[in-house]
Amino acid sequence: MKRKGIIIVVSGFSGAGKGTIMKELTKRYDQYALSISATTRNPREGEENGREYFFITTEEFEKLIAENGLIEHAKYVNNYYGTPRKYVEEKLSQGIDVILEIEIQGALQIKEQYSDAVLLFVMPPSAQVLEKRLRGRGTETDEVIAKRLARAKEEAVGIEKYDYIVVNDDLDECVEKVHEIIGSAHNTPDRNADFINEMREQLGKF
Amino acid sequence: MKRKGIIIVVSGFSGAGKGTIMKELTKRYDQYALSISATTRNPREGEENGREYFFITTEEFEKLIAENGLIEHAKYVNNYYGTPRKYVEEKLSQGIDVILEIEIQGALQIKEQYSDAVLLFVMPPSAQVLEKRLRGRGTETDEVIAKRLARAKEEAVGIEKYDYIVVNDDLDECVEKVHEIIGSAHNTPDRNADFINEMREQLGKF
Repeated sequence: MKRKGIIIVVSGFSGAGKGTIMKELTKRYDQYALSISATTRNPREGEENGREYFFITTEEFEKLIAENGLIEHAKYVNNYYGTPRKYVEEKLSQGIDVILEIEIQGALQIKEQYSDAVLLFVMPPSAQVLEKRLRGRGTETDEVIAKRLARAKEEAVGIEKYDYIVVNDDLDECVEKVHEIIGSAHNTPDRNADFINEMREQLGKF
Repeated sequence: MKRKGIIIVVSGFSGAGKGTIMKELTKRYDQYALSISATTRNPREGEENGREYFFITTEEFEKLIAENGLIEHAKYVNNYYGTPRKYVEEKLSQGIDVILEIEIQGALQIKEQYSDAVLLFVMPPSAQVLEKRLRGRGTETDEVIAKRLARAKEEAVGIEKYDYIVVNDDLDECVEKVHEIIGSAHNTPDRNADFINEMREQLGKF
């Protein structure tokens, strides 16, 4: 079976650890590429242009929208976030699975355009663990943590729109689970239409 | 996450090796139970009642149908084949995944009653390999082989009704692939409704 690249959309509560999981996944396996989003928000300390995000101006972002250069975009806390089309399409055509770490609005935009995209939602083992992790970072004020928990409540409404949930209890197990889920998604009939049709054709010759 | 048992329906071309795969799977992992079908056909050499099949009379079979004691049944080459309900329900309630090796008619009956059932279709790497395997058994006449290939052509029409296809090239890899596919199926939102609702409830308390 010739494997076609598929888009993997990863969402999840802030603090659920999705960034860490995806970085580890791409480190372990060659078959994945991590898409880098463009944003108009300011870089945080330690962030680098072209690594965490492409940091661009609002004018540049709006030009990309106008040119259909983004496969999804959303506004969140007054800033634009979006996924450049070129990189994604290039990787898919090479048979590489492209991972996008985006929010639900973007996830649903992707599913509309790429019906074979796989939507994953990363969850903590419990809400208590989530709160503890958010506090544990030690970098955020109570107000910010309260905001994130409120945001998690909102995000939790959309979980049923996703194809799979992944519980991040143990990082290593979670990375392997994600790898297995994506591997399994490659085995649906709709993602193997060519192989199935070829089999039918061959059988027809007997 | 508390894991609920799900039904795994396995179909595939005769000669694709689905029996061997499933036997090996249940040998390797405790979480699976193989359902044994009832049939009115005569036992073949080496087959034992209660191992390959429950061999029963047509009268007994029709009584089971009347009592709603089968979760699916079909007639194929003048014989009844069906799955007794009791064993399946017992295992599911224990959190064990029950594997049914049945044909497409039965598979679709199951999906109607158990919407969370996972339907797998086992395929050979190519039609040529399938023919070779059927001949390789050395036990069948050309006429029987021709009939089976004709049957495979018919079965190939329904592949898109299945959730996943599995290519049986290497037995060991194939068994692991099936295990991963079933494991992934356990991670869909609809199979974790309780966990998701509990998370929402917990988040609501902050």
